[in-house]
Amino acid sequence: MDYARANASIGINGTVLTNVNANSLILTPHYIEKVKALAGVFRPYGIKVYLTARFSSPIESGDLETADPLDPEVRKWWKKKAEEIYAEIPDFGGFLVKANSEGQPGPNNYGRSHVDGANMLAEAVAPHNGIVMWRAFVYSQHDPEDRAKQAYSEFVPFDGKFHDNVLVQVKNGPIDFQPREPFHPMFGAMPDTPLMMEFQITQEYLGFSSHLVYLPAMFKEVLDEDTFVNGEGSTVSKVVDGTLSNKKLTGIAGVANIGTAKNWTGHPFGQANWYGFGRLAWDPYLDSEEIAKEWLQMTFSNEEKFVEEVSEMMMASREAVVNYMTPLGLHHIMDTGHHYGPGPWIDNLGRPEWNPVYYHRADSLGVGFDRTATGSKALSQYAAPIVEKYNSVETTPEKYLLWFHHLPWDYQMGNGNTLWYNMAAKYQEGVEDVEEMVKTWNSMKEYVDDQSFEKTQMLLQIQLKEAKWWRNAVLLYFQQFSGMELPDFIPEPEHDLEYYQSLEFPYAPGISPSWH
Amino acid sequence: MDYARANASIGINGTVLTNVNANSLILTPHYIEKVKALAGVFRPYGIKVYLTARFSSPIESGDLETADPLDPEVRKWWKKKAEEIYAEIPDFGGFLVKANSEGQPGPNNYGRSHVDGANMLAEAVAPHNGIVMWRAFVYSQHDPEDRAKQAYSEFVPFDGKFHDNVLVQVKNGPIDFQPREPFHPMFGAMPDTPLMMEFQITQEYLGFSSHLVYLPAMFKEVLDEDTFVNGEGSTVSKVVDGTLSNKKLTGIAGVANIGTAKNWTGHPFGQANWYGFGRLAWDPYLDSEEIAKEWLQMTFSNEEKFVEEVSEMMMASREAVVNYMTPLGLHHIMDTGHHYGPGPWIDNLGRPEWNPVYYHRADSLGVGFDRTATGSKALSQYAAPIVEKYNSVETTPEKYLLWFHHLPWDYQMGNGNTLWYNMAAKYQEGVEDVEEMVKTWNSMKEYVDDQSFEKTQMLLQIQLKEAKWWRNAVLLYFQQFSGMELPDFIPEPEHDLEYYQSLEFPYAPGISPSWH
Repeated sequence: MDYARANASIGINGTVLTNVNANSLILTPHYIEKVKALAGVFRPYGIKVYLTARFSSPIESGDLETADPLDPEVRKWWKKKAEEIYAEIPDFGGFLVKANSEGQPGPNNYGRSHVDGANMLAEAVAPHNGIVMWRAFVYSQHDPEDRAKQAYSEFVPFDGKFHDNVLVQVKNGPIDFQPREPFHPMFGAMPDTPLMMEFQITQEYLGFSSHLVYLPAMFKEVLDEDTFVNGEGSTVSKVVDGTLSNKKLTGIAGVANIGTAKNWTGHPFGQANWYGFGRLAWDPYLDSEEIAKEWLQMTFSNEEKFVEEVSEMMMASREAVVNYMTPLGLHHIMDTGHHYGPGPWIDNLGRPEWNPVYYHRADSLGVGFDRTATGSKALSQYAAPIVEKYNSVETTPEKYLLWFHHLPWDYQMGNGNTLWYNMAAKYQEGVEDVEEMVKTWNSMKEYVDDQSFEKTQMLLQIQLKEAKWWRNAVLLYFQQFSGMELPDFIPEPEHDLEYYQSLEFPYAPGISPSWH
Repeated sequence: MDYARANASIGINGTVLTNVNANSLILTPHYIEKVKALAGVFRPYGIKVYLTARFSSPIESGDLETADPLDPEVRKWWKKKAEEIYAEIPDFGGFLVKANSEGQPGPNNYGRSHVDGANMLAEAVAPHNGIVMWRAFVYSQHDPEDRAKQAYSEFVPFDGKFHDNVLVQVKNGPIDFQPREPFHPMFGAMPDTPLMMEFQITQEYLGFSSHLVYLPAMFKEVLDEDTFVNGEGSTVSKVVDGTLSNKKLTGIAGVANIGTAKNWTGHPFGQANWYGFGRLAWDPYLDSEEIAKEWLQMTFSNEEKFVEEVSEMMMASREAVVNYMTPLGLHHIMDTGHHYGPGPWIDNLGRPEWNPVYYHRADSLGVGFDRTATGSKALSQYAAPIVEKYNSVETTPEKYLLWFHHLPWDYQMGNGNTLWYNMAAKYQEGVEDVEEMVKTWNSMKEYVDDQSFEKTQMLLQIQLKEAKWWRNAVLLYFQQFSGMELPDFIPEPEHDLEYYQSLEFPYAPGISPSWH
């Protein structure tokens, strides 16, 4: 009830009760009874419940031998299942589906398309005014040419073919909830399909609930990006809120960061991300710094000094995490499985795109993923003005440099220093950003209750320690390839590379198969 | 910090940070650092931290090839490990050990005894004033004659041979935290060894946190039992508090019922069990009904009507759970693995004593476990006055009837009715007990905050539903053997036996191997 009320207070009007990798038990009568009870709790707060629909449920229920979406028996099965659910929960929201992605079953198993699968479910819930949220987070079961290209390749050809009550749900970037990614090229590329934004509020790749990272700054960066598909000003926000191509059904989803912690989110500042998500979901044109201030005032204090300095700290925290984890367009170099801490050396996983080495492509000649015309051509999925600008190293924003280009270690950047020097400088800057956060927070004791103050203080110490760990581990690793000295401003690493590579985290949260 | 304060408020002065089945990682430097941090949180509240010591740690650390407690290198390893821990945590409490039980390694693996194992660890922590709590919850790796006899058989011969800083920790009964068991025969049988009581506050076999069962009533029943070892009045309390045979080192341990629920225990009344445990741990002579009243007054209201009626309900709740789960001395007929709900039919597990059929021994001739001289002779482990009394069916208290005797279904009990009739009557009584609890609670709305009132009300409905489930499933199962009609006062069961046997609970808490 508290959870429902908290969500309602920031405008969240739907909740998916099961994980996208959940099995089909949730669709059995025993569990529908539970779902009904939960729907009853959420209903007074204006929140509809949704379920994930495992595509192979007709088989797992023991009823059928196929889940082929064009098989009439399968279609009938889903219609009956929808009727069963709606008989108990007349305002049931509908289904969220992860299909043919990371081992989940889907229409491709039967040689059918995402449209075939989504439309079958859409027909089942349509008589009850339900919707289907079909996730675009897919990547091929076969070794990909470039994982960043796949969702676009699989979905864009089907633009306009989904039923009216289908939303295609697209992550903010083409890889997977990194500290920074360019916006997903599907935004703007499917004018005849309503695209839903999927943000991750929980910090799977951003220090879990140990690091203070104010995510609305990142959400906002994505929402403000210009797709240029209808000329300048065709922002991602306008795609998502439907105004760019006249859509009625729209939405923004967030992978929740709440858990059983007494304060819901573990890190006291995790609540700001939950809050900011809710605010932006209803108005993507809000200013993220204003949201931070609102939250600080409602949570801790109205004192101007406090609100000004801490909101500034929050706004800076997002660039900090980019700096100490993945500056200059680096991405997915986290340790494997749990995604906590650095692991750029990982190269032994079953599929190429599970390995960090796939993403940074470092060798003695250079570092970075060439996604331009000379490389994977992923850049070509964007509109012409972006392609033109990013195709040249010189005009590519430095924050996306190594996302789109493979460059020599001694490549001379805008400031006249080498890529290697600038990379080291960014990691050092990340550490210093956190030192600054520590300093700011230490001066705020008088404005905050003791428990929140001390908890945040303690967590910032962990964040500082881990920022140094990231800097040391990644620079020592890349140094093997660059063959260049660490600049003087980098303190002597506490350990050698072998030590960092030897660290194991057998009980990290989310240690089981890395599903998203 | 809240947790430390809550424990301190009821006198709890020690906490074991790891589960008895934990692996040896906790003894590595990384984890000792975490233990140190936790010790710092507990210290201001007067609570010492303890760790479980996995017996095979010297091997798992990679340092040695054996964990033989008589090997000098192994003894040195543990001494060094203790020094390492005490260097960081000077007031570290010591080790809790589960050895050679349910697959855990121990001294028996090397042909050594529990004394060899316990004393080795005791020597390691003695220079630092640490203690060892060595659990007596063992049962043979080989098919046992009677599991109830084994702890006594393995430990009593070693009375007086443990070092001064060893406590042997004994569960309240000889099987495993059942709704009702006779007291453990080790109490009183080892006058030269300090025996620690181990209660289970979490309700592994008593409806988890869904059922309202006031455990201090049960704790008190055990503490008040007379062992007769030094003549009448040799109660279990006097064994445990050391007065019966002059012990200085004494203790009572509780398997905690706290978790990540906002109210710590899930069921609002679970807190009463935590509270009552703390009170009895310091004074086993307190009255459990007085403790219930104290708790009600501090938690909800001082109104006399409320305190009187609800404390009465709490006191009755323990007999209720015995009635609807395991009346007349029945035991361990819970479903397997998670121990939730009835499973008297389970007969296919790897070891005989893992199966409920091992405990009830029902066949067409009768039901119950003959532990007298004509059976397993487990009764002989008690003092003479008990042996004499319980050896005869007629003088055995009815609450222990089927614990000690195998009796025909038409055996005529004290009230003139058959065993079958009385068994059915007890199950029905259990259901009616819960109906009474529901009624009582429904009339208490004005004394309790809405949230606690509604949550308890809802949980009582679950308890009522499950009491009926127990009654129906167990009676239908035993009816196959008794071949007798259900008495008229039993309502027509909602389902048949096959239905009850088909129920599966793939996500019950504690579904992994059933360790205690």
